[in-house]
Amino acid sequence: MRLPVSTWPDIDAWLKQSTTIVIPIGSMEQHGPNGFLGTDALCPEIIANHAESLAPDELLIGPTFSVGCAQHHLDFPGTITLRPSTMIAAMVDWTDSLLRHGFDRIYWFNGHGGNIATIEAAFSEIHARRSFDPRGADTRPDLWLQRRDWWDFAEVMSLCKQIYPQGHGSHATASEVAVTYWAHPERERQHTAMSPKIAPNGSISDAVRYRRDFPDGRIGSDPTQANAADGGRIVAASAQCLIDDVARFGRR
Amino acid sequence: MRLPVSTWPDIDAWLKQSTTIVIPIGSMEQHGPNGFLGTDALCPEIIANHAESLAPDELLIGPTFSVGCAQHHLDFPGTITLRPSTMIAAMVDWTDSLLRHGFDRIYWFNGHGGNIATIEAAFSEIHARRSFDPRGADTRPDLWLQRRDWWDFAEVMSLCKQIYPQGHGSHATASEVAVTYWAHPERERQHTAMSPKIAPNGSISDAVRYRRDFPDGRIGSDPTQANAADGGRIVAASAQCLIDDVARFGRR
Amino acid sequence: MRLPVSTWPDIDAWLKQSTTIVIPIGSMEQHGPNGFLGTDALCPEIIANHAESLAPDELLIGPTFSVGCAQHHLDFPGTITLRPSTMIAAMVDWTDSLLRHGFDRIYWFNGHGGNIATIEAAFSEIHARRSFDPRGADTRPDLWLQRRDWWDFAEVMSLCKQIYPQGHGSHATASEVAVTYWAHPERERQHTAMSPKIAPNGSISDAVRYRRDFPDGRIGSDPTQANAADGGRIVAASAQCLIDDVARFGRR
Amino acid sequence: MRLPVSTWPDIDAWLKQSTTIVIPIGSMEQHGPNGFLGTDALCPEIIANHAESLAPDELLIGPTFSVGCAQHHLDFPGTITLRPSTMIAAMVDWTDSLLRHGFDRIYWFNGHGGNIATIEAAFSEIHARRSFDPRGADTRPDLWLQRRDWWDFAEVMSLCKQIYPQGHGSHATASEVAVTYWAHPERERQHTAMSPKIAPNGSISDAVRYRRDFPDGRIGSDPTQANAADGGRIVAASAQCLIDDVARFGRR
Amino acid sequence: MRLPVSTWPDIDAWLKQSTTIVIPIGSMEQHGPNGFLGTDALCPEIIANHAESLAPDELLIGPTFSVGCAQHHLDFPGTITLRPSTMIAAMVDWTDSLLRHGFDRIYWFNGHGGNIATIEAAFSEIHARRSFDPRGADTRPDLWLQRRDWWDFAEVMSLCKQIYPQGHGSHATASEVAVTYWAHPERERQHTAMSPKIAPNGSISDAVRYRRDFPDGRIGSDPTQANAADGGRIVAASAQCLIDDVARFGRR
Amino acid sequence: MRLPVSTWPDIDAWLKQSTTIVIPIGSMEQHGPNGFLGTDALCPEIIANHAESLAPDELLIGPTFSVGCAQHHLDFPGTITLRPSTMIAAMVDWTDSLLRHGFDRIYWFNGHGGNIATIEAAFSEIHARRSFDPRGADTRPDLWLQRRDWWDFAEVMSLCKQIYPQGHGSHATASEVAVTYWAHPERERQHTAMSPKIAPNGSISDAVRYRRDFPDGRIGSDPTQANAADGGRIVAASAQCLIDDVARFGRR
Repeated sequence: MRLPVSTWPDIDAWLKQSTTIVIPIGSMEQHGPNGFLGTDALCPEIIANHAESLAPDELLIGPTFSVGCAQHHLDFPGTITLRPSTMIAAMVDWTDSLLRHGFDRIYWFNGHGGNIATIEAAFSEIHARRSFDPRGADTRPDLWLQRRDWWDFAEVMSLCKQIYPQGHGSHATASEVAVTYWAHPERERQHTAMSPKIAPNGSISDAVRYRRDFPDGRIGSDPTQANAADGGRIVAASAQCLIDDVARFGRR
Repeated sequence: MRLPVSTWPDIDAWLKQSTTIVIPIGSMEQHGPNGFLGTDALCPEIIANHAESLAPDELLIGPTFSVGCAQHHLDFPGTITLRPSTMIAAMVDWTDSLLRHGFDRIYWFNGHGGNIATIEAAFSEIHARRSFDPRGADTRPDLWLQRRDWWDFAEVMSLCKQIYPQGHGSHATASEVAVTYWAHPERERQHTAMSPKIAPNGSISDAVRYRRDFPDGRIGSDPTQANAADGGRIVAASAQCLIDDVARFGRR
Repeated sequence: MRLPVSTWPDIDAWLKQSTTIVIPIGSMEQHGPNGFLGTDALCPEIIANHAESLAPDELLIGPTFSVGCAQHHLDFPGTITLRPSTMIAAMVDWTDSLLRHGFDRIYWFNGHGGNIATIEAAFSEIHARRSFDPRGADTRPDLWLQRRDWWDFAEVMSLCKQIYPQGHGSHATASEVAVTYWAHPERERQHTAMSPKIAPNGSISDAVRYRRDFPDGRIGSDPTQANAADGGRIVAASAQCLIDDVARFGRR
Repeated sequence: MRLPVSTWPDIDAWLKQSTTIVIPIGSMEQHGPNGFLGTDALCPEIIANHAESLAPDELLIGPTFSVGCAQHHLDFPGTITLRPSTMIAAMVDWTDSLLRHGFDRIYWFNGHGGNIATIEAAFSEIHARRSFDPRGADTRPDLWLQRRDWWDFAEVMSLCKQIYPQGHGSHATASEVAVTYWAHPERERQHTAMSPKIAPNGSISDAVRYRRDFPDGRIGSDPTQANAADGGRIVAASAQCLIDDVARFGRR
Repeated sequence: MRLPVSTWPDIDAWLKQSTTIVIPIGSMEQHGPNGFLGTDALCPEIIANHAESLAPDELLIGPTFSVGCAQHHLDFPGTITLRPSTMIAAMVDWTDSLLRHGFDRIYWFNGHGGNIATIEAAFSEIHARRSFDPRGADTRPDLWLQRRDWWDFAEVMSLCKQIYPQGHGSHATASEVAVTYWAHPERERQHTAMSPKIAPNGSISDAVRYRRDFPDGRIGSDPTQANAADGGRIVAASAQCLIDDVARFGRR
Repeated sequence: MRLPVSTWPDIDAWLKQSTTIVIPIGSMEQHGPNGFLGTDALCPEIIANHAESLAPDELLIGPTFSVGCAQHHLDFPGTITLRPSTMIAAMVDWTDSLLRHGFDRIYWFNGHGGNIATIEAAFSEIHARRSFDPRGADTRPDLWLQRRDWWDFAEVMSLCKQIYPQGHGSHATASEVAVTYWAHPERERQHTAMSPKIAPNGSISDAVRYRRDFPDGRIGSDPTQANAADGGRIVAASAQCLIDDVARFGRR
């Protein structure tokens, strides 16, 4: 079931069988010369929705948390970021809303490495607020929070290595661009010229230095390799892993 | 141009001709027995994207701010809300990000009456932070913030009255449900039984009283009238108004 | 009863008969060449206190929340504003204090259009905090929050139109200036020269543009028409409406 | 000049001769069986306005910051408090507003011992924000913040000791009650029965213990001694001290 | 017992006999030409640890809260400050953590005059949060918060006056420097040249003016008098007072 | 140089040769039956101070940020945590203070895995505030923020594996306990009985589940192996790596 296109009686019925929900979470940030600004939000959303189409009775997909922590990309036009403290506040509110309905297993399906720190910090914040409640709120209900990056399944990583033995990279990767092309084939731009063909590697710090070190935004990648067909294979692999992983999460 | 499926060089090019951006803003909240939880986010997004398809060189559509202020719907499962203070913080961050790129005319295209107060409060917050800057930040650049509700055009209102002379209502309205059906025709549910056929009217306060006063979530509406075809007419009307209104906004 | 000049045993006794309180809420901002900076705080305070003098057993008037949201007037000396997020925090604290004593019907009697958005946002914030409480605080007690603008009664609006068929305006209005003159007749300044006699109309945005568009601070008004005698008629009309409206509110 | 009943051109003229403003600051809290809940806000306001009437060209009196830190009185009905963090935020906003107009000497004329800590903390907060500004905002302009308690002048203390050799006390004092009676003689209640005649002394902690230790709210005082005539003498003494102290402050 | 070098079973055992904990709290700020930046954190820590060595079964010493409110020293390199609002938030968290374990008597042993306002404000904040809890958290448990400055015991003050009849001063005092020398004798620097020998007196405001008025950082002091031996006498005196005072606190 | 026991003229001199500072950062949390609550703060402090004793002209060690993110240990008495949002605010203030003095390379030497997410989030927060400054503060100066975990050097990891081929573990590790024993040999407790000898492994979530899964607090470790002598070898190895790493950092 997909929450944004379901009705409240649908969710009411869902809650009678499961208290688990999957929230795609991403970012709105530059992804090099041929990757979309929304890549990191689109990927987990595309994969989660595909998984839901395969197993509609097993998954409830919530709305996408689409703007995350992208400070280091701010020197590239179109990037939008939350400050981490704002992102924590928003994740607290989403969680408090879901808890009120009875959801107690919230699975954040993440599309952005730069979100990881703040997502984990938000989990601590949420648990700490409950632990500090003067009447022991942290046991009622027994809230589970889980982050999973869409690429962080052995099958997916292995598939990506196989498809892109060289130039997969770590930002504006060939695989993430491919996933978005699969969902938006009319917007494929794999013939964009890039120089060097494989972008330099390096470490990330703030926005100004990022642009100086990675002038077209890519890190270590050659996303001209991306195409919709390969994207579809990656989506299929990650979607199946998601179905299995959420099933395990729901049984904990 | 649609920012989430554009690249940063696309936005770089856009900024050479315009510093205006349209941000659809909505809510994730119950919309009665046959309306989607995402209705208020979907409507402005659908209309804005349709407008963009008609006038791709005139409009830049940003990501959708999809979870807003829905406290009063929290007693219906699936509703997700931000506290107003969190929503203000997030809108500040989106604006600060866009300002850094040079956008100085930000047009928030709204789909939810319950967002109006907090959007306007956020505008005051943003302007106040600039006014309080010790070196006169409020004149550099000359920032314009605008809210427009998608139904708040004379042509759209008049069309809705014509299509739904009775039972248009004020929440889970026939028109908003129709707009979402136009975009998701496979999910039409106009034959859902509702009783009474036209929901009661009344005033909104907090979540518990809302559900007591409006047991199936609707206020004053008969959304069984909604269908995709009428939705398409409403989308077309509102999209054209949006194109014109943004053009005026960009010339101020 | 007026809380600031009552004792705690007086309030203790009041709470045995009623859990309703009226809080005048206004702003400290420019009101044109002959209006006081405190106009928007003074008007609801004057009217509420007058109503209390007519029906001392029926009304409890709290302290005036006298500084509100006036960012757009900051280019005129003497204006003081809260950021909306600060105003929300303060209204939360006032409400939490009153709730602790047993007040569960809080009627905010407002004197400033620019406060409306933030007052409504604060109501959402207060209700959301209760809805998010892990043990269902939102039902104990059944808190009612109400905003009413002092001019927003049919009788008052009709009287103003009758007294000022032209040049009533929308900021630094003839009626609000008259209300303050009735309470401070020794400070009447109706002979202040203004040009044009009726100020221009237009829309409000931030502080710098406001002053550019409305150089002496007025919008659409000719407050040279204001005098203490007419002010007294308006006070009397609004005070009677307040008494009736609060009685209805207390019975909900 | 009194800001709330002045116009913006008045303040514009004032700023050509002085950049000093006096802000009365108090609290809304129980003051024993015959003292008003507003005592701590009324006293500095009454004295400041009286001083202004004696030296209208030398003093600009701003609006009263009337609700402060009164947590320890919350067990007595009618008390309203801000959390210290809220009070700091509000004082920051007042200061930022005044700074924008050119005021750089802000004199907080305080009526409540329980405010002292938070006022001083707010001063640190304001200065720290300026010190942390990446471009040295703390030197432009050279902001002076000053707190003065209305009773904290040698002449006033000595007068109070002379009038009330016994039972002056430290909360709900004879002198503060007298000051409010002078301004509201029709509300004098000096014949209220109290037992013991002089309230116990002790130390203050939280609300629940305060009421247990000081059952009628007084600490060390016999406010049945208060009358309007003595209040007038105290007001006169403090007002003259205020005029002189502000003159010194303005010359620093 | 010293918490940072104890195990959790040690604290578990302690809580079976006592619910009191002592938290040294200080600042990281300039202390003149021969005083350490950590003086205000070191002094209460040194004294508390010494007291614990004398009465290990009677005292539990928590970690030192070592960075406090030092805005006014920011013009001297090495000073680190929290904004008061941050310090309040941190003290809330420490207290909430300790409350969860069952500590309900928290004794903050302070080394910095500039912390006093914010510590007291934090106490109000903590109590207010409990008073605002919708289910009366402020009675469960009966939380006691206490601040004590290490020099604020009659015996200690009298000893300091005896050792330093002249030039004890109020910042970078001879006594506080001596206390740190006793703990770090290898770092004694009493022969540092200072001019004038006794620093000027004056009042404190913000950072820029502080450095202008007190060019080497001292106020009223001649810390060349400080030596380790005298420091030891002061530590011994204050430690004994601390043992007695905490015993009284634990019996309240 | 060690900042807390240095004077401001010392730091003034340091800044003429270097703008780098090392801040030990840890946590106050249970470390099993024989590890100290302060282990995670003590380890980086001990190592940093040892490094400084070896290379006093090359390193400036700031005060230890000793209480961090330990929510998941709150069910064990003595644990103290900050909420992540508070920790971010405090790190912002430390950084703003240091920036004002001219430090632009701040190296956070970390002792706690649970801090990693929030430290990285704080870095984003700090950079974002600068990026959002309307006048390009993010280029003046060119701020570098670096986190390094004390165990995260190849030499240190390899040494730990060699000393503890079994039962090194991931919380309350043999190595961290050994480091603290080296600094506090009189407090060695290696003969504490533990069962099982090697603690279970597993994943961390909130406080209540943590204690249920890891009843004595250890994860995967046998800290009865810890002794002061081995601790000294680990300190020596990590200290040398720190000296080299900071030198590289300072040259970036």
